[in-house]
Amino acid sequence: MKSVVKHSLVAVALLTLTVAAARAADPLPSWYEGAAKKSIVEFVGNVTRQGSPDFVPQPERIAVFDNDGTLWSEHPMYFQLAFALDRVKALAPKHPEWKTKQPFKAALEGDMKTLAASGEKGLLELVMVTHAGNTPDEFQKIVRDWLATARHPRFKRHYNELVYQPMLELLAYLRANGFKIFIVSGGGVEFMRAWVEGVYGIPPEQVIGSSIKTKYEVRNGVPAIIRLPQVNFIDDKEGKPVGINQHVGRRPIAAFGNSDGDFQMLEWVTSGSGTRFGLLVHHDDAKREYAYDRKTPFGRLARGLDEGPKRGWTIVSMKDDWRTIYPSAR
Amino acid sequence: MKSVVKHSLVAVALLTLTVAAARAADPLPSWYEGAAKKSIVEFVGNVTRQGSPDFVPQPERIAVFDNDGTLWSEHPMYFQLAFALDRVKALAPKHPEWKTKQPFKAALEGDMKTLAASGEKGLLELVMVTHAGNTPDEFQKIVRDWLATARHPRFKRHYNELVYQPMLELLAYLRANGFKIFIVSGGGVEFMRAWVEGVYGIPPEQVIGSSIKTKYEVRNGVPAIIRLPQVNFIDDKEGKPVGINQHVGRRPIAAFGNSDGDFQMLEWVTSGSGTRFGLLVHHDDAKREYAYDRKTPFGRLARGLDEGPKRGWTIVSMKDDWRTIYPSAR
Repeated sequence: MKSVVKHSLVAVALLTLTVAAARAADPLPSWYEGAAKKSIVEFVGNVTRQGSPDFVPQPERIAVFDNDGTLWSEHPMYFQLAFALDRVKALAPKHPEWKTKQPFKAALEGDMKTLAASGEKGLLELVMVTHAGNTPDEFQKIVRDWLATARHPRFKRHYNELVYQPMLELLAYLRANGFKIFIVSGGGVEFMRAWVEGVYGIPPEQVIGSSIKTKYEVRNGVPAIIRLPQVNFIDDKEGKPVGINQHVGRRPIAAFGNSDGDFQMLEWVTSGSGTRFGLLVHHDDAKREYAYDRKTPFGRLARGLDEGPKRGWTIVSMKDDWRTIYPSAR
Repeated sequence: MKSVVKHSLVAVALLTLTVAAARAADPLPSWYEGAAKKSIVEFVGNVTRQGSPDFVPQPERIAVFDNDGTLWSEHPMYFQLAFALDRVKALAPKHPEWKTKQPFKAALEGDMKTLAASGEKGLLELVMVTHAGNTPDEFQKIVRDWLATARHPRFKRHYNELVYQPMLELLAYLRANGFKIFIVSGGGVEFMRAWVEGVYGIPPEQVIGSSIKTKYEVRNGVPAIIRLPQVNFIDDKEGKPVGINQHVGRRPIAAFGNSDGDFQMLEWVTSGSGTRFGLLVHHDDAKREYAYDRKTPFGRLARGLDEGPKRGWTIVSMKDDWRTIYPSAR
C-alpha cells in the first residue's frame, strides 16, 4: 500500500470516527444545525456554565412547555377532543337524550361543522360531561385504554406516538442540564397525567393544565376524590402565567410553545431579569406533519409570528429545523 | 493498674464510643426512643427496603405535611394572623376609614375579643385586604421583612425560628430516603413560599396552600401577576385532599398533621392501598410550648384524638416523644 493511500485511509477513518463521536455527543441529533439549535445550545451553556455572568442556580432552572402542537400534534383536532368524541359514542347508550340534543347529536353523527358552530361553550360542555363523574384514577384508566386502541386518522398510529422526536431530545437535554420541566397546557390536567410520565418522563406533579372541579367525599366508607362537571380553571392565554405562578411559585427562565395561547406565557417568562429563553414551534411542514398558522381553530399562531422575532424568541421551522418529526415506530 | 479496673475502663470507653456512634447514626436524635419514633423508622424501612413486600418506588414516595402546629407553632394565634394584624397597623395611615370600620378597628386597637367575634369572615377579610394589591415578589419581600423584625410574644424569637427541631430532622430523614415532601397548609401559599425554602429546604413548587385570586396583566409595558382581594381556594379540611390531588396528581403515602383540619388529608392518604402512614402531633407540653386540643380556635384536635389510634395513626406527644422543641438559638 502506498504511503499516501495509507494516510488517506487513516484520515478517512479518523474523520469517520470524529463525525460518529460528534453525533454521539450531540444531545439534539434530530435538530439540523441552524439558528434555532444554536440558540438553544447557547442559552443552556450560558445559564449552566460556572462563572458565566448568566449562570442560574439549579433550583431556579425552571422550563415550561405547552403540550398540544409543541410536544405532540394537534391536527386535525386536539387529541383530547378526539377522545371526548369517542367518549360520547361510548356513553351514548346510557344517554338516549343525546340523539336529539346538541352538541351531542353532532358529536354522534360526526357532524364537525355543527360541532364547530357550537363554539367554545359547546365543546366545553362536551368535554365536561364526558370527563366527569369518576375518580382521577378511574378517569386516567379510561384515557390509557383509549390511547391503547384509538389511532390517528392520517398517521394510523396511537396518539401518544405522535410526539415530536426533536422535543423529546430537548426535554432530555434540559433535564441533563439540571432543569426542572413543567407542562403548561390548555388541555385537561388529568387527561395528560394519564400518560405524560411514560412518554415524556414528566411526573404528574409537574403537569399544569385546565381542570374541572373536584370534591372529596367518603362514600360507603371509602374516601375518594370525585370529578364534577364544572369548570375549575382554564389554563390558556392569560391563564398560563397565573397557573404557573400558582403551581410553581416562581417565574421560569425558559418557555416553549407554538400558538397564541402561549403568547402571555412566553411574554411573562422572557421579560424576567437575567437571561431568558422563548421558543415557538411553527407548523410549516404539510408533507411530514401539518402546515398552519394564522387560519386554524387548533393552534392559531399570528401575534407570535409577528412579534416573536422582535422579542428575541426563537421560531422553529418544523420543515427546516427538524430532521425527524416522530420517533420511529417500535 | 489492676487488670479488672483496666478492663472496666476499656468497657466504659467502648460503651461510650458505641453510644456516640449510635447517636451519630441516629437520624432522629431529638426524638426519644418510643412507639412514635419506632413507627416512623419502621414505615420508612418497609417502603424503602428492596425486596420488601411494602416497597414503594421512589417517584411514589410522596409525603405531605401540614404547617401550622405541625412544623411550627400556632399559638397564641396563627403566625400569619399576627402578620396580618401588623400589616393593618402599617397600612392604617392610608386607610383612615379603618378607625371606625370592623374588623379593622378591633385589629388596630388589639381588641382580640371583637376580632374573634368577627368570625372566619372577618378574619378572611382582614387577611385578603392586607395581602392583596401587589405582585407575588413584592408580597414575599413584605413577609420576609416582617419575619426579620417581628418577634413571638412569649418566646421573644423570630417566628421562623419557632419551627420544631424533631420535625426538621424528620423532613431530612424522609428526603434522605427518597421522599418528595409537600407542605399542605390552610395558610396562604405565598406567605409560606417567602420563607419555607430557607427554613425547611422545600422549594416553592412543593407548597400547597390557601390562595387569593391573581390576574396577569401588562402594565406600562411590564408583565406582572397581580394579587386580588378575592378568595381562590381554601386548603383546609376537605380542601386538603382536593388541593393535593390538583397539585400533585397522585395520592401520597404519608401524611403529617396536628389538627382536625388535617383529618381528611390523613383519612385519604392512609386509606390508599399498600402501606400508608399517618401522624398527628398532640400539643401537650405547656411548659416548653403549649398544651391544647379540644378547646382552642387555633389547631383544634378532637376527632383525630378519638379516631386516630383506631385508624392506626401515630399520635406524637410533644412532652414525651420530643427531646427538644425548637432549634437552639444561633
